[in-house]
Amino acid sequence: MRAAVYHAPGDIRIEEVNDPRIEEPTDAIVRITHTAICGSDLWFYRGQMDYEPGARTGHEPMGVVEAVGSEVRTVKPGDFVIAPFAISDGTCEFCQKGLHTVCRHGGFWAAHTDGAQGEAVRAPLADGTLVRVPDRAEGDEKLLTALFPLTDVMATGHHAAVCADVQKGSTCVVIGDGAVGLCGVLAARRIGAERIIIVGHHEARLEIARRFGATDVISSRGDEAIGGITELTGGGADHVLECVGAAGSMQHAIQVARPGGTIGYMGVPHGVQAEGLDVMGMFFKHLVLRGGPAPARAYMLELMDDVLAGTLDPSPVFDLTVGLEGVPEGYAAMDQRRALKVLVRI
Amino acid sequence: MRAAVYHAPGDIRIEEVNDPRIEEPTDAIVRITHTAICGSDLWFYRGQMDYEPGARTGHEPMGVVEAVGSEVRTVKPGDFVIAPFAISDGTCEFCQKGLHTVCRHGGFWAAHTDGAQGEAVRAPLADGTLVRVPDRAEGDEKLLTALFPLTDVMATGHHAAVCADVQKGSTCVVIGDGAVGLCGVLAARRIGAERIIIVGHHEARLEIARRFGATDVISSRGDEAIGGITELTGGGADHVLECVGAAGSMQHAIQVARPGGTIGYMGVPHGVQAEGLDVMGMFFKHLVLRGGPAPARAYMLELMDDVLAGTLDPSPVFDLTVGLEGVPEGYAAMDQRRALKVLVRI
Repeated sequence: MRAAVYHAPGDIRIEEVNDPRIEEPTDAIVRITHTAICGSDLWFYRGQMDYEPGARTGHEPMGVVEAVGSEVRTVKPGDFVIAPFAISDGTCEFCQKGLHTVCRHGGFWAAHTDGAQGEAVRAPLADGTLVRVPDRAEGDEKLLTALFPLTDVMATGHHAAVCADVQKGSTCVVIGDGAVGLCGVLAARRIGAERIIIVGHHEARLEIARRFGATDVISSRGDEAIGGITELTGGGADHVLECVGAAGSMQHAIQVARPGGTIGYMGVPHGVQAEGLDVMGMFFKHLVLRGGPAPARAYMLELMDDVLAGTLDPSPVFDLTVGLEGVPEGYAAMDQRRALKVLVRI
Repeated sequence: MRAAVYHAPGDIRIEEVNDPRIEEPTDAIVRITHTAICGSDLWFYRGQMDYEPGARTGHEPMGVVEAVGSEVRTVKPGDFVIAPFAISDGTCEFCQKGLHTVCRHGGFWAAHTDGAQGEAVRAPLADGTLVRVPDRAEGDEKLLTALFPLTDVMATGHHAAVCADVQKGSTCVVIGDGAVGLCGVLAARRIGAERIIIVGHHEARLEIARRFGATDVISSRGDEAIGGITELTGGGADHVLECVGAAGSMQHAIQVARPGGTIGYMGVPHGVQAEGLDVMGMFFKHLVLRGGPAPARAYMLELMDDVLAGTLDPSPVFDLTVGLEGVPEGYAAMDQRRALKVLVRI
């Protein structure tokens, strides 16, 4: 079979790799129909994170079950399934608490098993990890494209809103107009936030934000942006979704939060440790800081219900679709900001 | 009148100062009977924080009302009163939310008005700031000494437990055996924590911790301490009270927290910004970070009820009592760790 393989920063190639096979009785083999390139894939692509040369890439799998191990109970060959960006058993202490991304026996796709940017993957802990997509969605490409972001970005945007404690009728600020920030807007609207202020600098993305429910758009930078938000909110917002994952955006989040407010931070906070986090600022404003890799599996069913009901559609975050052979070009397009998020249709 | 005045690091003197007078109709004048030296006073005493030469010191006032402005309604001359370490109006948006330490019109004693280490103070926003001590406590020195820590350390220990989301039956770790850490133990026990593990290095203080309800004491350091706690808790505690306020203790808190756990951090986090906070560690463990200057006023009545009922007595944190002229020696004793916390009886 063919799959994307990392060689060096900027160098992803489609190559022949071994077919996956059942290794544990809890495994399933999934033939991928939909996958994607994630903003977090750009870290190794840009050389900002170590990655093993020769390792497979991608962590957003959707497709058809081809085979299952002897202990798999919840899916069978022929089922159409979606999986979150983390593998989880669904039964351990942390999964029971809805923290599937610290599952005692789980892990992340490319590190724990195959990467998802390929023709097929071995899916460990299939009963915990895979979620069956209702039959009526199969073949409905529009619906499948709307469901697919639940693997990662939509779940992460939702987690940002949950961590920021967004409430019905509340005012929130979403920092970042990447795919996660846009999904954060959608999640905040879904929860019922009354005022959703997004901070970003790309007109096309901000236009999607408006469609997703943003009530105010701040495209200025630095102190001007902070001043604008402070004025709009009469002194800061109770709920801030930090959807960039960088030192500067964390600082902005602290500055636009209202005293006593909560910051939900998503994305791995690159550079924060080196550049320092304004803990003193957080302390004197009584801010709550909450974040982590989104437990997408915990949110999957409730979000899927809304997608199937037609009330939730994050698919506009995809502005480029490629085939498997187009994956290297997809990375380049996202790296150069020619694409917001790339869907890979196999 | 006489009061403590800061001159330079290590140089606090008792001097003649102007008597306080009513300046605003919401002011009261309080003759101090009890005050104290706080661990946070050591920052300027040690030159770790800028402080204005000539400025008054101290922020823990208790005593008798001598005069009130024309708009003061809740206290009158002759009333025995206690006040938290922050002034607050009790009516603004943040006071209504229980965040009295970000009151829109309040501030801290020595910065906003007189310092409390003196014979009397002007108490601004008296209706919001001062709390009347029930008549039966007057003259009962033992009871007054048990009530007095509500001005600061007991409220701060309680806030640590509240921020760490300590629950009945839960397991928590208290990092630090200073007065706030010891009060954190007391607060955790009061809330009903089943297992309270304290980390500290001073035998006499740890003995107080045991009396206050600590079930386990960890006096080793570094990795050994972390390993010990991880073993005791089977992988970390859901609730961590960080009661030191330094980069190293914040790091310990992150390391001993269980995935999904909450860190309540108290004390101003000195050095954290410079040395960096392990945000990556917090992120991948899904930790919640919550802290701020304790809204002592918000907790005052509920804690006072328990002290009056005889079920709460934080007074063992005082291991040295001095008169006003003994304040400079009290600072030296705390600086040299000869005293845990100094009560000043005027």
